[in-house]
Amino acid sequence: ALLGACGSHPNPPASAPKTTAEKPLNQPPRPMTLVRHGRKVTITMYAEETKVQIAPGVTFPAWTFDGTVPGPVIYLKQGDDVSLTLHNLDPRMPHSIDLHAALVAPNQNFTPVLPGQSKTIHFVASVPGVFMYHCESSPMPLHIAQGMYGMAIVTPPGQKPPLYTLVQSEFYKPNNLNAVLTAQPRYVVFNGSADRYVQNPLPAPLDKPFTIAVVNAGPNEISAFHVVGSILRDVQDTGNPQNHLYDVQTITIPPGGGALIHLEFTQPGSYSFVSHAMNQFDRGAAGIFDVKRQ
Amino acid sequence: ALLGACGSHPNPPASAPKTTAEKPLNQPPRPMTLVRHGRKVTITMYAEETKVQIAPGVTFPAWTFDGTVPGPVIYLKQGDDVSLTLHNLDPRMPHSIDLHAALVAPNQNFTPVLPGQSKTIHFVASVPGVFMYHCESSPMPLHIAQGMYGMAIVTPPGQKPPLYTLVQSEFYKPNNLNAVLTAQPRYVVFNGSADRYVQNPLPAPLDKPFTIAVVNAGPNEISAFHVVGSILRDVQDTGNPQNHLYDVQTITIPPGGGALIHLEFTQPGSYSFVSHAMNQFDRGAAGIFDVKRQ
Amino acid sequence: ALLGACGSHPNPPASAPKTTAEKPLNQPPRPMTLVRHGRKVTITMYAEETKVQIAPGVTFPAWTFDGTVPGPVIYLKQGDDVSLTLHNLDPRMPHSIDLHAALVAPNQNFTPVLPGQSKTIHFVASVPGVFMYHCESSPMPLHIAQGMYGMAIVTPPGQKPPLYTLVQSEFYKPNNLNAVLTAQPRYVVFNGSADRYVQNPLPAPLDKPFTIAVVNAGPNEISAFHVVGSILRDVQDTGNPQNHLYDVQTITIPPGGGALIHLEFTQPGSYSFVSHAMNQFDRGAAGIFDVKRQ
Ligand SMILES: [Cu+2]
Ligand SMILES: [Cu+2]
Ligand SMILES: [Cu+2]
Ligand SMILES: [Cu+2]
Ligand SMILES: [Cu+2]
Ligand SMILES: [Cu+2]
Ligand code: NA
Ligand code: NA
Ligand code: NA
Ligand code: NA
Ligand code: NA
Ligand code: NA
Ligand SMILES: [Zn+2]
Ligand SMILES: [Zn+2]
Ligand SMILES: [Zn+2]
Ligand SMILES: [Zn+2]
Ligand SMILES: [Zn+2]
Ligand SMILES: [Zn+2]
Ligand SMILES: [Zn+2]
Ligand SMILES: [Zn+2]
Ligand SMILES: [Zn+2]
Repeated sequence: ALLGACGSHPNPPASAPKTTAEKPLNQPPRPMTLVRHGRKVTITMYAEETKVQIAPGVTFPAWTFDGTVPGPVIYLKQGDDVSLTLHNLDPRMPHSIDLHAALVAPNQNFTPVLPGQSKTIHFVASVPGVFMYHCESSPMPLHIAQGMYGMAIVTPPGQKPPLYTLVQSEFYKPNNLNAVLTAQPRYVVFNGSADRYVQNPLPAPLDKPFTIAVVNAGPNEISAFHVVGSILRDVQDTGNPQNHLYDVQTITIPPGGGALIHLEFTQPGSYSFVSHAMNQFDRGAAGIFDVKRQ
Repeated sequence: ALLGACGSHPNPPASAPKTTAEKPLNQPPRPMTLVRHGRKVTITMYAEETKVQIAPGVTFPAWTFDGTVPGPVIYLKQGDDVSLTLHNLDPRMPHSIDLHAALVAPNQNFTPVLPGQSKTIHFVASVPGVFMYHCESSPMPLHIAQGMYGMAIVTPPGQKPPLYTLVQSEFYKPNNLNAVLTAQPRYVVFNGSADRYVQNPLPAPLDKPFTIAVVNAGPNEISAFHVVGSILRDVQDTGNPQNHLYDVQTITIPPGGGALIHLEFTQPGSYSFVSHAMNQFDRGAAGIFDVKRQ
Repeated sequence: ALLGACGSHPNPPASAPKTTAEKPLNQPPRPMTLVRHGRKVTITMYAEETKVQIAPGVTFPAWTFDGTVPGPVIYLKQGDDVSLTLHNLDPRMPHSIDLHAALVAPNQNFTPVLPGQSKTIHFVASVPGVFMYHCESSPMPLHIAQGMYGMAIVTPPGQKPPLYTLVQSEFYKPNNLNAVLTAQPRYVVFNGSADRYVQNPLPAPLDKPFTIAVVNAGPNEISAFHVVGSILRDVQDTGNPQNHLYDVQTITIPPGGGALIHLEFTQPGSYSFVSHAMNQFDRGAAGIFDVKRQ
């Protein structure tokens, strides 16, 4: 699939092969399972075509991990020995999973899983951080634009998982590779739906430091992550404990990138988190932290 | 206003409510005042509609802080106790001010000030750095695109203010939210006017280190700040004394971001500063340091 | 040329003066020479118009350094005393060279060399790193888009040159400034040709750390550099030994920027390196490391 996608690059985008299916499916979401025995972690995930809501009143015929966009957050601990099985429940096309946390040969591990088939990959979560995962089947830009991405978090010893996880991503005209490659996004969202946390703010503590993990799934745009009325006390690129930027107002997160961000609020109130790129903000890249004494 | 703006996100940009006023006003600039008594700093600013020049021979019907684009640089010292009053002299619409240097509840402090009204906010400038400020009234992308932004600098103890301040920003078709969200900028400028420092270079010292503060106000684009014939000796993200990148050729500054940059020139001559993104450079994101022994 | 280009900024892009030549030339490539005597390095380069291949079956009428796009990699050692002569073999227009590694007065050194003329500049390579060089003649966006760029590497004492050098860049409609400024790129490539390292993968060692140097020549877009199945063990902005980001999944490289990246693969296989911006990946910003025990 990777080579397949790359083999298609000499064609200009407009003539790229369409994988358009005539009629969207709406397969029932099938949740990920994650079972831990000591350091052994066994994960089972499902590729499915499922309708999701991407803005108030707007549905999208998505290709998904486990029936949601983004897919589920995969919580791991540094050193975990992971076996991950992807079942492709989608009857119509191959899918695959590429985890940025998995340092493994892509041509052995991130390869397409045919409809009705499954594949198990194995890796040790040796590097701590906040990682994107995504489908890598051809054409990859379309599989990502259709919704096949999520976050994997690998916490180092002694570190708690973040209070919140936010995946920024863009939605284009559905199932249209040309739109993904050449049009402006219709929506830019956190966790799959424009302004979802404007309508349902995220509770956050007062006078108490906490962390959030942010991944930018793209497929195309760079995020300018910012919290109104606050400052990013410590930004750790890729969530790595060795990387620090202190008291940063706005952080650039490229597509395929992520960060662990330390926050602390000292006044109760409503604090928006946004992409400070106004054309992303306006398309839905906004949410609210509702800060109260807890 | 923040919630108001966010409430409009579900509408696609093209149908977003217009705040277009039929006839531009040209209110006389009213300068900011800043009065210091020890650590107490009292600032008074004015929202106004004023015509400004954004390129040689090109005027723009701006919405402004104090009659200029960008608004005035607010110089503070770390620990200052600041009271800032915004008088809205604009008879036609609400405005507000959001300072990235102010760690305060946005829903109490960055709220709209109605025409003819004023509002005072209070904050301690606890975090040093180079910060953007801007109007946050709805629709925020338009208020920023119309010119309502500027720089606030908070210097830590023992640090001098920078020799120069540069605010990069874009201009679109005036008073047109759809253009701001979907069109390419007409001009990309430093300190409000295309090539102003090409025509009037900034004097700079020879063999003597100095600093400049750069903010990217956007509203949309990422700056690739570069100094031709030189190198950025030390780049401090958000101007924070804990952040350093040394001897960097070009630095990414997202919309809503800023940096303190250390420079030193060792030959007399003309050194352009640019955004190295050529489509920004060509639209006016260029200026010149005129380096002479002083 | 710099001032000339800047003098043209007040004109909107669409009306910018064309330097379009009716019929492309195809001058034979003339390789750079680099002669070292101790710390004295003498370089001779040639500006030429030469047809190059930018994708399988696609030629481009380029303006070049030495007949290739990108131009040759200039390998230097920190402290080298460099004399660089540019011969302009192009009969039709002035060219010039601006090296980000050269801390010299642009108005004395990066000035246009007329057809048939030559110019020698002198600089000490005082700062280590991975640098872009490019033509700076007016209109600079077009000279870069036509192919006039490359990488200069300045290695500090005791450091070996990188195993590979990768220059990311975009191709637009040839010889069309308006397309460079307003259109989307037709191709986004590493080392001058879409997917060249997909078709001819780069051999890389197993279980052995190595470095690559990456420059983004633009002219416009920001790279989101990523290696599938791996992680960037250490990213040194501008290749400077003082800058480190560890275990980063994807790194932002602005146009005019560069980095030295440390890699290590622990499984044999095929690992794609890409810009994780999918609209760049799809246009050719992909290649493969073929990892084998060596
Ligand atoms: Cu897929
Ligand atoms: Cu990826
Ligand atoms: Cu306003
Ligand atoms: Cu802001
Ligand atoms: Cu040239
Ligand atoms: Cu340059
Ligand atoms: Na949202
Ligand atoms: Na802030
Ligand atoms: Na300018
Ligand atoms: Na430089
Ligand atoms: Na390539
Ligand atoms: Na990775
Ligand atoms: Zn590919
Ligand atoms: Zn194992
Ligand atoms: Zn930290
Ligand atoms: Zn809003
Ligand atoms: Zn006070
Ligand atoms: Zn410093
Ligand atoms: Zn210029
Ligand atoms: Zn010398
Ligand atoms: Zn290192």
